[in-house]
Amino acid sequence: MAFGLTLSELVRLVDGAIVRSGSGCALTGVASLDAAASRDISFLGNEKYRNQFLTSKAGAVIVAHGETGGPEATGLVAVDNPSLAFSAVVRHFAAAAGLLTPGVHPQAVVDPTALVDRKTVRIHAGAVIMAGARIGDGSEIGPNAVIGEEVVIGRHCRIMANVTIRERCLLGDRVILQPGCVIGADGYGYAFHEGRHVKIDQVGTVEIGDDVEIGANTTIDRARFGKTVIGEGTKIDNLVQIAHNVVIGKHCLIVALTGISGSAQLGDYVTVAGQVGIVGHVTIGDKATLTGRTGVTANLAGDETYAGKPAQPLREDLKLQAHVRRLPKLIERVKALEIALRQPP
Amino acid sequence: MAFGLTLSELVRLVDGAIVRSGSGCALTGVASLDAAASRDISFLGNEKYRNQFLTSKAGAVIVAHGETGGPEATGLVAVDNPSLAFSAVVRHFAAAAGLLTPGVHPQAVVDPTALVDRKTVRIHAGAVIMAGARIGDGSEIGPNAVIGEEVVIGRHCRIMANVTIRERCLLGDRVILQPGCVIGADGYGYAFHEGRHVKIDQVGTVEIGDDVEIGANTTIDRARFGKTVIGEGTKIDNLVQIAHNVVIGKHCLIVALTGISGSAQLGDYVTVAGQVGIVGHVTIGDKATLTGRTGVTANLAGDETYAGKPAQPLREDLKLQAHVRRLPKLIERVKALEIALRQPP
Amino acid sequence: MAFGLTLSELVRLVDGAIVRSGSGCALTGVASLDAAASRDISFLGNEKYRNQFLTSKAGAVIVAHGETGGPEATGLVAVDNPSLAFSAVVRHFAAAAGLLTPGVHPQAVVDPTALVDRKTVRIHAGAVIMAGARIGDGSEIGPNAVIGEEVVIGRHCRIMANVTIRERCLLGDRVILQPGCVIGADGYGYAFHEGRHVKIDQVGTVEIGDDVEIGANTTIDRARFGKTVIGEGTKIDNLVQIAHNVVIGKHCLIVALTGISGSAQLGDYVTVAGQVGIVGHVTIGDKATLTGRTGVTANLAGDETYAGKPAQPLREDLKLQAHVRRLPKLIERVKALEIALRQPP
Repeated sequence: MAFGLTLSELVRLVDGAIVRSGSGCALTGVASLDAAASRDISFLGNEKYRNQFLTSKAGAVIVAHGETGGPEATGLVAVDNPSLAFSAVVRHFAAAAGLLTPGVHPQAVVDPTALVDRKTVRIHAGAVIMAGARIGDGSEIGPNAVIGEEVVIGRHCRIMANVTIRERCLLGDRVILQPGCVIGADGYGYAFHEGRHVKIDQVGTVEIGDDVEIGANTTIDRARFGKTVIGEGTKIDNLVQIAHNVVIGKHCLIVALTGISGSAQLGDYVTVAGQVGIVGHVTIGDKATLTGRTGVTANLAGDETYAGKPAQPLREDLKLQAHVRRLPKLIERVKALEIALRQPP
Repeated sequence: MAFGLTLSELVRLVDGAIVRSGSGCALTGVASLDAAASRDISFLGNEKYRNQFLTSKAGAVIVAHGETGGPEATGLVAVDNPSLAFSAVVRHFAAAAGLLTPGVHPQAVVDPTALVDRKTVRIHAGAVIMAGARIGDGSEIGPNAVIGEEVVIGRHCRIMANVTIRERCLLGDRVILQPGCVIGADGYGYAFHEGRHVKIDQVGTVEIGDDVEIGANTTIDRARFGKTVIGEGTKIDNLVQIAHNVVIGKHCLIVALTGISGSAQLGDYVTVAGQVGIVGHVTIGDKATLTGRTGVTANLAGDETYAGKPAQPLREDLKLQAHVRRLPKLIERVKALEIALRQPP
Repeated sequence: MAFGLTLSELVRLVDGAIVRSGSGCALTGVASLDAAASRDISFLGNEKYRNQFLTSKAGAVIVAHGETGGPEATGLVAVDNPSLAFSAVVRHFAAAAGLLTPGVHPQAVVDPTALVDRKTVRIHAGAVIMAGARIGDGSEIGPNAVIGEEVVIGRHCRIMANVTIRERCLLGDRVILQPGCVIGADGYGYAFHEGRHVKIDQVGTVEIGDDVEIGANTTIDRARFGKTVIGEGTKIDNLVQIAHNVVIGKHCLIVALTGISGSAQLGDYVTVAGQVGIVGHVTIGDKATLTGRTGVTANLAGDETYAGKPAQPLREDLKLQAHVRRLPKLIERVKALEIALRQPP
């Protein structure tokens, strides 16, 4: 109950406006519209859930300005962005769980030459911090994570369980690495010589900006030389492959199972949906959006939405797909013409 | 030779019928039809291998009822399902290797508040069991696996090397997690606010039913709130991405490199082939089959086989593909019509 | 400066010819054409970078025979293969960093029955070497890697952090496994029996030839019985799925996010680009090339380049794609014919 909120406290927390007071129960948790009970806070962020909203048993629902519907017993709080406001509520309830307890577990392995302030950093059991690595204040290294030689990690980062960061890679502040992701594996580069693929040494690094998050089991390869770059604020989903020398701008979104080949460059605010493939050495402009499974084989201008393989503006791709779907009708029309022509005049 | 079988013992083991006795050698191992020698048991489960069967040197072959061919020296045992029967034989030979030896390795790290019965559970070197976790009787935790705070693992589970299960996730009984898979990473959720993607806390969990198996390096994200659900008996291949709040029914099959986006719902007995992509918030009915690389962008009814992007019934997709392949011919027909029309009457 | 090179030493190192002497500075590092300064060596391996070459500040650039351009102050060294030559230079500068320091970390866990020569092998902190495993001379096992029971690893292998190799798998000499990859997980095999998918035991192994490299978080499943084979010299990128009983020939290249289904067979020198899918039980001939996202559903002959789904020779696929893109024009032509025919004669 320590975290319990009244409806007025909820309004202050999300900087919203009361639309309806509802039953006035203390609010002690969060839940989805269909699962919520009288002490739960929920939200309506997508019209798909309107039916659930109309019959919800939630104590309070966060809605967009203008919304006045739903059950009488349910309090309504209006905000600009219900999804964002709800996340503030979730943070409120999750606050206690998120507090970092500093300390180095006795079964962690920290090289004596690593720079770690044991008063502000938390290192879990089984983590291995190698020679010359530096961990910024307030950062957390998860169980069995491996931090390579001379890696530099900024402040307030969360490196989760079983992550691998190879030698000399650099992370900014507040970077989150989900479990199992691999930063700085060798780029995929070989020279063909006398019938064999000879490995080209990959002596560059990876540089990750502030506020980047990288998903579980995603892989980001080190540069051949120079660096692979993930710009500030970019968020990468699970199982994404980023090849050597790729440069990704600021505040991009890259969804699961996408592959970006060597030396490709993405601008800022680029959105890449799932299972997209991007060939090497191309440039994609700021604020471009690639819809699911787009295949990029050439440079793309920014401020445009793309689809298909090879990628073209979404509206062109939709037209072409419509033409293809109408092929059976076209064949009928040609058949009719053939019959007409063969008929005696 | 301790595990050696006579042909009669083999018949009893697989509940089959002798079709032909063959040479009568003791049977001491298993092998494929082309590699098998006189003391090996093999099976014919797919007509593709009939040629190998006809020249096999196996001591005995398990076949479907009605089969009478193959070399005279090869014993034949008929069953309903040769593949299933063969797996029983494999289990027989593998039995000794599969026995669990309970115990906690001295270099495992088990939090004092974790509930682990050291007499029935096996925990390997380097495994980290965090505060409040519970491991059911007869379960095995592999080397360097990480079991998060308050995770609950049922009985007779096999959690393999380098697996990560994050806090509060729940596993049923007899669950198998192949190496490197990640259960309960944060869902991919952000709200766009003043030019930045702000992380939406993901405070839900993952719930995995009895008899589920999950492949190597597959990732299953925790719910935003509530839970991501993998139903009883479902089997997931390697490198699959299951996003937050997805609900997968019972006894589904999901093949490698498939991505299922947030809040999608799959019914029971759904089969999803490799590299399929499913957008968020859609529903797929019971017993639906999605062929390889299907792209699902809308709800799909059950009891139907789908293909293409956007997904449509397989027979429609095949027709459309045939039309496309015949486009060159259609163009010829149009050209002929044009020539005919331009001819003077 | 210990590693510094004169231009003549560089020429000897790469077995090249001096085209132009340049400024004669000592060469102490490597860099890309646009980032290089007067003491850096760079190379021109792709015409895309010609503009960078023309304005480069590099002390020396390695070029193909015949090249004579670029700034006067930049030395030029001509070779057959600039990319390969440059990698020799990189190796020269990286040599010190690459020296193996033998020894077993006190916090590694090596089973007493494992065969490891502590004078020649390096085993990092947190690595777990299980019963009966054998590690060849000069090999390195990374932090928190897990080497299963009776695994055999050849000489001069590099097994990186958080890799898992399950029981009884075999690796040749000079094999490189990038972080997080999983060798020998169970194949994805079930028999449907009374409404449930019953696991088929996977009792085979994985056999990996000499000079193979396998990417980060890639998964290679063990055979049902017999073995999954990766041939000598083959290089596999990150996040690739190789299913049970697949046989891959020698000197193949397999790029990220590709999935190869059970029992498929690839010849030698096969190139598979990114996001390709290959169904089970098919054969692909020597020197076949599959372009990005090809979908293979039937056997393919060697010495040919393929594209599309289903796969067909690239030139056929390109023609078909061109026809599809010209569909709007075809529809116009049919419309014109219809108008012409309906006109009174």
